[in-house]
Amino acid sequence: MTRYPLGPLAVSLGDPAGIGAEVIAKCWDNRGRFELPPFVAIGDPRAIAAVWDGPLAIIDDLQEADSAFDVGLPVIQLASAEADVPGHPSVAGAHCSLDSLEIAVGLARSGSAAGVVTGPVSKEQLYGIGFTHPGQTEFVAERCGVAASNVAMMLAGPTLRTVPVTTHLPLTKAIGALTTALIESRARAALRGLQRSFGIEDPRLAIAALNPHAGEGGALGREEIDIIEPAIAALAAEGWRVTGPHPADTMFHASARAKYDAALCMYHDQALIPLKALHFEEGVNVTLGLPIIRTAPDHGTAFNIAGQDRADPRAMAAAIRLAAQCGVHRAPAA
Amino acid sequence: MTRYPLGPLAVSLGDPAGIGAEVIAKCWDNRGRFELPPFVAIGDPRAIAAVWDGPLAIIDDLQEADSAFDVGLPVIQLASAEADVPGHPSVAGAHCSLDSLEIAVGLARSGSAAGVVTGPVSKEQLYGIGFTHPGQTEFVAERCGVAASNVAMMLAGPTLRTVPVTTHLPLTKAIGALTTALIESRARAALRGLQRSFGIEDPRLAIAALNPHAGEGGALGREEIDIIEPAIAALAAEGWRVTGPHPADTMFHASARAKYDAALCMYHDQALIPLKALHFEEGVNVTLGLPIIRTAPDHGTAFNIAGQDRADPRAMAAAIRLAAQCGVHRAPAA
Repeated sequence: MTRYPLGPLAVSLGDPAGIGAEVIAKCWDNRGRFELPPFVAIGDPRAIAAVWDGPLAIIDDLQEADSAFDVGLPVIQLASAEADVPGHPSVAGAHCSLDSLEIAVGLARSGSAAGVVTGPVSKEQLYGIGFTHPGQTEFVAERCGVAASNVAMMLAGPTLRTVPVTTHLPLTKAIGALTTALIESRARAALRGLQRSFGIEDPRLAIAALNPHAGEGGALGREEIDIIEPAIAALAAEGWRVTGPHPADTMFHASARAKYDAALCMYHDQALIPLKALHFEEGVNVTLGLPIIRTAPDHGTAFNIAGQDRADPRAMAAAIRLAAQCGVHRAPAA
Repeated sequence: MTRYPLGPLAVSLGDPAGIGAEVIAKCWDNRGRFELPPFVAIGDPRAIAAVWDGPLAIIDDLQEADSAFDVGLPVIQLASAEADVPGHPSVAGAHCSLDSLEIAVGLARSGSAAGVVTGPVSKEQLYGIGFTHPGQTEFVAERCGVAASNVAMMLAGPTLRTVPVTTHLPLTKAIGALTTALIESRARAALRGLQRSFGIEDPRLAIAALNPHAGEGGALGREEIDIIEPAIAALAAEGWRVTGPHPADTMFHASARAKYDAALCMYHDQALIPLKALHFEEGVNVTLGLPIIRTAPDHGTAFNIAGQDRADPRAMAAAIRLAAQCGVHRAPAA
């Protein structure tokens, strides 16, 4: 097995009524086939036992993780007020999912864990208990003391990585939120992330246009000229290998993808449509710009199939594997 | 060979300085492997001879096409004022590309040709000679006496068909142009086109959302609630099998694609990104809602590679093949 120098990964269970427990357990079951390093689930072990009959190894300290991993799925135990039924989220479960995230981040911040992999939470449930962040990414950024504008969400699949400049905004507001400064800061987070977490010394970033045909010189929109091109010029002046603005529809076929390490996209669906069209089962969400490693499978709680043994663990496995690979790149050279 | 009951197809050459001539000639060369029916090129034979050494069969009448097709590439000759050099578009070439389109449409309108396949033109060149339509699609619609709002552009690949509601508009204007009535009329054109040209009796149309996560019940935008859902309700009330609004990022992976015959998309890139990510070399543009069959390869003139024997003929072959298949579906039953 590849050696992962930074210790085990902390995997938050996500909402205990969602598919997080099932996919994490399936990852442990298939740890050899998926080539996964030691990881520890953080959450209520009853949520795992409700959907999986395999062995749990309850531990108190991440130092026990390596040896426990051979015996069962290591779990750092969080007691929820009540055990959730799969598919039926509760207030207690929402609190548990937040505690799990908080502890996982703390373990990575302290250096005990090599990084954090976050299981799927329900934003609706979290908002119900007073959670004010748009999502887990922003929560993790805040806990790490990093401004949200300086982190970037990367969606990574086997042959494509995309980074959206704007994320969860109505499309008209996303267009309105585009500024040269925001594009530059996301691009820098993406480029530095490709260096630090992916080990790419001189990364190539392809920057998408907003309008069809990249605006056709202004005839189909001016954002390319007024907002995107100045950002590209500034990044190029700093020595980064950036290209664009590229017409978004001709950026994502195989020979185009071979020309860059990541694509910077202007809005959520521009980044997510190609990623999921090509790599639906294996998409990983990576947060760049943090002092810690954080990945997540690019799927939700899927309450509708929870507890039915139907959840596909490949995205969670890809998230765990990628977190470990990022750890290798970020580890100080021996 | 499959029998195509409606006669040969008329293939306009497009701009004589572009790759149209080369891909059409390569289609004739590979007519057996590509399983192509008889077709006739309409244009200046010098543009073909400039990039291809194969036999031309100059004809005056489409009735000669079938027998000529065994001997050489049948061409209905248009004389341009001067012969274009590949890669160097001219005013004379722009006129020639427009004449070629006009004649091809006329042959289909008169019933002499089974349908029209249009080679790539340069809009910039056409605008320079006074062409006022946004593109060939609108020109063909007008020549057929059909309002542009009642035709729909379909992009068809082997495993995905998409139909954009809006096409060549700046993204903010495309969002502003979305109305319930426009979505309904494009949807009906798409659904009737799937019936008439694709032989699908009870077609399934998946309708995309505009905003990320389909607007999350209004939290991420209201267009789904205010504009798209009423259109879906109206179409469903007419008995059409329509679903949505679907989050656009989870519509285009293989198992999602299996659930519909076409996806109705709200803007250009939403339709084109997945189509080209999956089927870059084989995308066909089909105009639905016309009294004639019209297809086109989903690529441009590619002046930068014209005359270098580098153009990939697969999209043109797919356009010719699909036009013939549509002809089979539209032919009166024997």
